Amino acid sequence: MSDVLSLLREALGPRVDTSPESLDAARADRSGHVAEGRPIAVVYAESVEDVQATLRIASATATPVVTQGARTGLAGAANAGAGEIALSVRRMTRILEVRPDDLLAVVEPGLLNAELNAQLAAYGLWWAPDPASRDIATVGGNIATGAGGLLCAKYGVVRDAVLGLDVVLADGRLVRLGHRSVKGVTGLDLTALMIGSEGTLGVVVGATLKLRRLVPGDVCTVAATFPSVRAAAAGSAAVTAAGLQPAIMELLDAASLDAIHRHLGLLAPLAGASQLTVQTDGPAAREEADAVAAVLTGAGGTVAVTHDRAEGERLFAVRRALLPSLQATGTVLVEDVSVPRSRMPEMFDEIVRIEREYGVAIPTVAHAGDGNLHPNFIYTGDAVPEVVWAAADDLFRAAIRLGGTLTGEHGIGVLKARWLADELGDDQWELQRRITRVFDPQGILNPGKVFTR
Amino acid sequence: MSDVLSLLREALGPRVDTSPESLDAARADRSGHVAEGRPIAVVYAESVEDVQATLRIASATATPVVTQGARTGLAGAANAGAGEIALSVRRMTRILEVRPDDLLAVVEPGLLNAELNAQLAAYGLWWAPDPASRDIATVGGNIATGAGGLLCAKYGVVRDAVLGLDVVLADGRLVRLGHRSVKGVTGLDLTALMIGSEGTLGVVVGATLKLRRLVPGDVCTVAATFPSVRAAAAGSAAVTAAGLQPAIMELLDAASLDAIHRHLGLLAPLAGASQLTVQTDGPAAREEADAVAAVLTGAGGTVAVTHDRAEGERLFAVRRALLPSLQATGTVLVEDVSVPRSRMPEMFDEIVRIEREYGVAIPTVAHAGDGNLHPNFIYTGDAVPEVVWAAADDLFRAAIRLGGTLTGEHGIGVLKARWLADELGDDQWELQRRITRVFDPQGILNPGKVFTR
Ligand SMILES: Cc1cc2nc3c(=O)[nH]c(=O)nc-3n(C[C@H](O)[C@H](O)[C@H](O)COP(=O)(O)OP(=O)(O)OC[C@H]3O[C@@H](n4cnc5c(N)ncnc54)[C@H](O)[C@@H]3O)c2cc1C
Ligand SMILES: Cc1cc2nc3c(=O)[nH]c(=O)nc-3n(C[C@H](O)[C@H](O)[C@H](O)COP(=O)(O)OP(=O)(O)OC[C@H]3O[C@@H](n4cnc5c(N)ncnc54)[C@H](O)[C@@H]3O)c2cc1C
Repeated sequence: MSDVLSLLREALGPRVDTSPESLDAARADRSGHVAEGRPIAVVYAESVEDVQATLRIASATATPVVTQGARTGLAGAANAGAGEIALSVRRMTRILEVRPDDLLAVVEPGLLNAELNAQLAAYGLWWAPDPASRDIATVGGNIATGAGGLLCAKYGVVRDAVLGLDVVLADGRLVRLGHRSVKGVTGLDLTALMIGSEGTLGVVVGATLKLRRLVPGDVCTVAATFPSVRAAAAGSAAVTAAGLQPAIMELLDAASLDAIHRHLGLLAPLAGASQLTVQTDGPAAREEADAVAAVLTGAGGTVAVTHDRAEGERLFAVRRALLPSLQATGTVLVEDVSVPRSRMPEMFDEIVRIEREYGVAIPTVAHAGDGNLHPNFIYTGDAVPEVVWAAADDLFRAAIRLGGTLTGEHGIGVLKARWLADELGDDQWELQRRITRVFDPQGILNPGKVFTR
Repeated sequence: MSDVLSLLREALGPRVDTSPESLDAARADRSGHVAEGRPIAVVYAESVEDVQATLRIASATATPVVTQGARTGLAGAANAGAGEIALSVRRMTRILEVRPDDLLAVVEPGLLNAELNAQLAAYGLWWAPDPASRDIATVGGNIATGAGGLLCAKYGVVRDAVLGLDVVLADGRLVRLGHRSVKGVTGLDLTALMIGSEGTLGVVVGATLKLRRLVPGDVCTVAATFPSVRAAAAGSAAVTAAGLQPAIMELLDAASLDAIHRHLGLLAPLAGASQLTVQTDGPAAREEADAVAAVLTGAGGTVAVTHDRAEGERLFAVRRALLPSLQATGTVLVEDVSVPRSRMPEMFDEIVRIEREYGVAIPTVAHAGDGNLHPNFIYTGDAVPEVVWAAADDLFRAAIRLGGTLTGEHGIGVLKARWLADELGDDQWELQRRITRVFDPQGILNPGKVFTR
């Protein structure tokens, strides 16, 4: 191990950091999970060559490598522990090219979403992926997790927004995947395979991103309160059924709404009350907002609508306050199941059942437009209590039973590895694991993540 | 081999066809390429079990299997020859489920695009992939080739329109890939990997498709004639630069336009004249068509615009007449390069250069909105002449040099296998080939296609 360290120092000099603070920080993302022990070093790569040098040393010495972006992940996937090299690409933040005519940009992986979009705005462009962490998460991390966000029903997920990737393989070789053209079907789609691979196939060192033009027009907001979460879910389904496509449609269940009102010092909502917050955008934003308001009123909601962006942000602030409100009361495990839109009411029923059965509160927010729910478990102390895992287990199985998935956008990491085969089936699990071995025969890329049981 | 046949007959009875007509038909798709020799049999699978039974026999006897949809492919990928089993899924045509609330349908692979959309229309829905062959090609074939079409710039390609796939592996096991939910990042994205895999990874026996609502509003058409192909390409770039998003934007170069006019008995166009045909749709179709017309007039085009659907179809008929017009003069090899939109004028320059250098005519049509060009080579007789391959070789290299690809939508098949490594690079080529071996260790799935040199 000291041998690995001296090889790294020789090749990478001051970019190898072994300060106790850096080593400790590298053990944890935002999931609450902390890796056992401290990594050997944190390498702060500043170039493709730095990444290649690190991986050459890692493969020559069979040392595990954990790639890190901004460590905002919620699955423990970026956590580096004893015997491992933490390879941070956070300093690779250049925008190499912006082509408004081709609606593409070529960027390094360590750039934050928000930094990218701030630069793109000057061209009248944006990159659509918008995890709630967009101010603090990297483009490379978004790609490696297959990140989602609030705008996905209308503007897609990460896999819809990447044309090509430059990837350093486990042995240090660089491959260029994908295209700069809109279309291209040359061989297998390895770009798509990389998306969501959580650091198990290679290190993304460059990305050719598919951009959109900034959406002209207003942003309008509709907030609707319903007597129950089922009624709110039915309201959101009615919006979709009416053929309306809001940019954002967020659903807060009663426990969430209650926690927010407490935290913000607002009047307590009526017992059971749930809330739907909808934003429309584009040239027809106003008409769409009015149409949404009409549908939600018809569905039994008490509706407020505004065509004013600032007033809309005030309505939306309630939704944004959820995480801080919950964190004020304990440690939060943010779960992340996804079901077909039509099964959302049943999924909420399951959550109520699980709350009762396990005696835990599970305040839940949903990206209602696409059926992605974030049930939150709150506990005290460092370790997730067993009863929470038991309840989460029940939750995952319910989501899978309803035709859904363990994880809509956060990934598997360490926290969900033991359920992976339940969703994939043993045959597919084995197929996937063997594919990782094609990329990484020694198994040095993020071992212990995703493909363990 | 006769042993394989008796095993197939025993397991599949009358679904095994060895009539000379069937065997001969199974040797060729629409590419002009014909496999050497006749396959052992054509198996017309009617169920998932039939596919599984066939693959179990194939892997037990190490017999190659060529999966076939409607054999409308243009790369020779579905052609079955001596010693191979042709496995047709064309009879598996059921629509198993349509969910308007979840905007999804579950279908069997042998269904034609047109049949699917005829059924979906009753629900106010459609599946967007629209290869020009949509009346004669299968959904499974679309998926296995990663098909494109005319609407892609606005409505996406096949990989944007599939949520999940049921796949029979080489050894007969069935795996279910992907989700029914909009979001899902559980493990590696094998659904995406299957798309465009041209029968080398498994047999698609079921597909969960992402649907769209039928687009309300008009379809308007703009036809603009330009003095040169460069001017027409600049016109299409100006439309994109203006932030307009037509549903269709097709560019005919001078040789194409000339061939069509001859075939239809119209007055000869001016020498060098090229044509852009644009269709807009949706609630703002009229305003967009007028804006497109203004941009194209400003770009030096002679413009006709109509808000009438029937009149628009008449304008568009010129574009649709291209293939028959060319086929009237010889055998047509339809090529399929794709470049970043901004490089289209340069690609047209390269085509002109190649025409001169090799002394061949290359009438070309482009899906101008997404940079996908179909240069057509016309020859007489059965085999593609060497000079055509030499010119095509030059063409492919030019497209790759411009940041583009060998194939925007038709795939590699047999016809482009020898250029595959030129685009992918040897490292990626090898990586891809090894992935096929994970799915198919014996190499019985479509051997000799895609991954040969
Ligand atoms: C407050 C908050 C809100 C959030 N909201 C959302 C949300 O709405 N939607 C959502 O999807 N997620 C959300 N997240 C989770 C997280 O922000 C995303 O998963 C994000 O994409 C992770 O980016 P990162 O740079 O922090 O990656 P990290 O956490 O550093 O890494 C995540 C994974 O990606 C791998 N990785 C990172 N960079 C690379 C690279 N260059 N090459 C190869 N592998 C790499 C790591 O090994 C690890 O497996 C949220 C997190 C927080 C804290
Ligand atoms: C007039 C004409 C116009 C065309 N226009 C377009 C166009 O605009 N855009 C475009 O992209 N293509 C176009 N094509 C090409 C062709 O129609 C498409 O490639 C189509 O997707 C092929 O479908 P198919 O059912 O005919 O597949 P086939 O030709 O039978 O097979 C194609 C490939 O897919 C594999 N395959 C088929 N079914 C399965 C399955 N169920 N599981 C696994 N593998 C399978 C085969 O092994 C083969 O590799 C055109 C063809 C013609 C003749």
